Order: sequence, then structure tokens, then C-alpha cells
Amino acid sequence: MTASTSTASPTDTSDVILARIADILATRLPARGGDPATSYVAKLFSKGPDAALKKIGEEATELVMAVKDQQPERIVAETADLWFHCLVVLTEHGLRPEQVLAELARREGVSGLQEKASRNP
Amino acid sequence: MTASTSTASPTDTSDVILARIADILATRLPARGGDPATSYVAKLFSKGPDAALKKIGEEATELVMAVKDQQPERIVAETADLWFHCLVVLTEHGLRPEQVLAELARREGVSGLQEKASRNP
Amino acid sequence: MTASTSTASPTDTSDVILARIADILATRLPARGGDPATSYVAKLFSKGPDAALKKIGEEATELVMAVKDQQPERIVAETADLWFHCLVVLTEHGLRPEQVLAELARREGVSGLQEKASRNP
Amino acid sequence: MTASTSTASPTDTSDVILARIADILATRLPARGGDPATSYVAKLFSKGPDAALKKIGEEATELVMAVKDQQPERIVAETADLWFHCLVVLTEHGLRPEQVLAELARREGVSGLQEKASRNP
Repeated sequence: MTASTSTASPTDTSDVILARIADILATRLPARGGDPATSYVAKLFSKGPDAALKKIGEEATELVMAVKDQQPERIVAETADLWFHCLVVLTEHGLRPEQVLAELARREGVSGLQEKASRNP
Repeated sequence: MTASTSTASPTDTSDVILARIADILATRLPARGGDPATSYVAKLFSKGPDAALKKIGEEATELVMAVKDQQPERIVAETADLWFHCLVVLTEHGLRPEQVLAELARREGVSGLQEKASRNP
Repeated sequence: MTASTSTASPTDTSDVILARIADILATRLPARGGDPATSYVAKLFSKGPDAALKKIGEEATELVMAVKDQQPERIVAETADLWFHCLVVLTEHGLRPEQVLAELARREGVSGLQEKASRNP
Repeated sequence: MTASTSTASPTDTSDVILARIADILATRLPARGGDPATSYVAKLFSKGPDAALKKIGEEATELVMAVKDQQPERIVAETADLWFHCLVVLTEHGLRPEQVLAELARREGVSGLQEKASRNP
């Protein structure tokens, strides 16, 4: 666990990371002036939607390989790669990670809000 | 459902959802008494690690198809499926979503902690 | 089983196998009266084109896992699964394995026809 | 080009194409002196076995996208890409396409040999 390097709880660190990254990715869209010459994501956007989808397939495969190789750090890194490219795809279609998290929360019957309340009575 | 349907900000809702789900998934591990007869995830765990990996490949493909079909709700739902099975794989290997988020934050130079501070001066 | 278990050369055995299987698969199409109740492929066709595509993603992942596990028989079996579902997809779109093989031959500068001639001078 | 554009039967054209390509690929192995500077496949081999596996995931995804886009020529081309990289993986593990075809023939109850005999009584 990396969150332990600060005095903050893991929750504090992970808080809004996906939303923050999605905010950044949105600024890389062509319509927002993203520059393919200086940004990996802007370059990916400029290639059209299939480019990010190809990465989904590739990164999913790399995650599978990392798991088969039983290398925890690579599993974390490849999951990060896969989620990152999911964020790219979401951004490309005007969608937000909060929608994915809300869907997960709905299915699993968990709520970040309730949890927060219960931890901070 | 998106966070916008409640009075809570998206950030509040998405807060600790991945961590909460990971907590639940951990209780489905065989060592923790997860019951394959009553739990989808316990059943997946009981089949051995390849079962969850197969789902990674399948769900990644389903996400690609949803994007090609230009169906926003399916894109959200399939991303949720993919992230959910990533959480299953992480749990199976004693890893946590907070580690993935910390890796993403490190790469992208964002910090949930700083963001929180800036929002709550 | 490999071709070497018979007195036939590998070439003789592998001759028209993909084309033969494609012929069989075509008889499983709904328009040809394929019965989902008795045929796996007819059932796959009846679910719509996404069903076979999902299998492509799943079987590709299973091939990757078999390779990582270094199990030669499983590598062969999973490649067979993957190619089989490619044949299903081709059939579903009125395409033939001979077209894929012709494309491969064109790219690689090989020709079954020339080869045959050179072997049978 | 499809086989139907020539006077040759599809069988003649598709005859030994996979085996011929596998023969060529084997000459690209490091142990056989394959040169990464001049050969795409030798370069792929030189990167280690994960490189070809990544391509399996990527090409499977590209095939799925081509099918969703309903573009017959791209479906054929992407299937060719996928099969080609399967041949690379087989070669890397000392396996042959004839083994895959024999497995397919066994499962489907077809035989290139019998077929040949029946066509040439």
C-alpha cells in the first residue's frame, strides 16, 4: 500500500483521483485545443476513437500477462494502464468515471456517501 | 444512475467506492469463508485465478463493442464490469485499488489530498 | 493428435480443413436451418453477431494464458478455439477462410499453388 | 484476392499456406539467425515471448472492431493479422499450424485426407 507514505488515510489519497485525471484528459480533446505534438493523450485522440480501443485490448492482455507472471507491482501498473485508457475512452465519449463508480456502487449496494457518514458520525 | 441525481457532489459519491467494493470482495475469498453457492465472486475465486482473467479479456472486448455501438449507457456498464473484474483480480492477489489509484496519481501528477485541500481552504 | 501420427504428410492432413469446417459452419446459419437446440454454432449465431465476437476476446485471452503457462497442448487447443471462432465470425459475414489464407499468402509472398507445383514437379 | 478470382480451386490456393508461412517464421528465430534489423518477426522474437502475446490481444481487438464496422476487407485483413501472430506464437514454442488444424479436424470430425480422397476417387 502506497498511501501509507503519508499521514493521510488511503481514502484521502484515492479520493478524487479518477475525476481529477478525467478533468485533465478532457483538456486534451481536439475541441479543447489538445496538442498531439506535446501530449500522448491528445495524440491518441487525434488518431480517432479506434486508437484508444486498441489500447484497451492491448492493456487488458498485458494485465493478464502480469498476473500470470505473479508480479504484484506489474499487476498494479498494468491495471493503472488499463483504467487510464478506460478514462481516455470515457472522455472521448463525453462520459465520466463518476458514472462508472455510481454504477458499481448501485450494483454492489455500497455508497461512498453513507460510508463517509458512518466513519464520521 | 449518476451522482448528479443526488444533492451530493459527484466527488462525495465516488469517494471510496472502489475501496468499499474491494473490502466486500475480500470477504468472498475462500480463506475468508466465501461461499461459491451464494456469491458470484466466491464462485469465480473457487475456479482458480484463470477464471477472473478470462473475464478481463471478455469484458474488455465487450467494452470495445459497446463503444463501437455508440451506446453511452452500455459504455458505462461495460467499463463497470471491467473495473469490477479488475478488483476481483487485485483481491485475488492481495492488492488494493488504492495502489492502482496512487500509481495513476503519481503518473499524472495529481493528488486527491491536494485537491481536497484546495476545495476546502 | 498431430499429423505425424498418420502416414500422411502434415500437408495432406491440413489440406482443406479450414475450408471444410467453414462449409459445415455455413449449414448452421439460421437461413440454412441451423438448429440452436442441437448445435453450439447455431446457438452462437442465434444470439447475434456480438456473441461470437465476445468469444474472440475470451479465446485470445485463453491462448495468452496457455502460453504463459508453457503448456504446449493447451497452446494448440486454445489456438484451435480461437481460429474456430474466427471461422464462425467469417461465416456470419459471408466470408471464407480461403480469403484470409490468400491475404496471408499475398503478404508473405508464398503460394500454395506454386508450392504444390514445386513439390510435384 | 479470393481464390475464386483464379481458375485454381480454393483448395489449391489455401493448400499449404499456413505451413509455408510457419516454415518462413522458423527461419526468423534467433537460433536460426533471424535478424531483428531486417525482419519484423525476428524483431518480435528478439523482444521476448510477451511481445507476440501483446499482439494477439491487440489483433483480436482490431478484428472485433472491423466486424463492428461491417467492413469485409478489414475483417479478412484483421483475421489474417491475428492468425499470423498466432503462427508467430506457435513458432516461438516449437509448435506447428498442422497441429492446430489436426486438432480442429479431430473436433469437427473432418479430414483433409478423406476429403481429398473423396474428391479424387
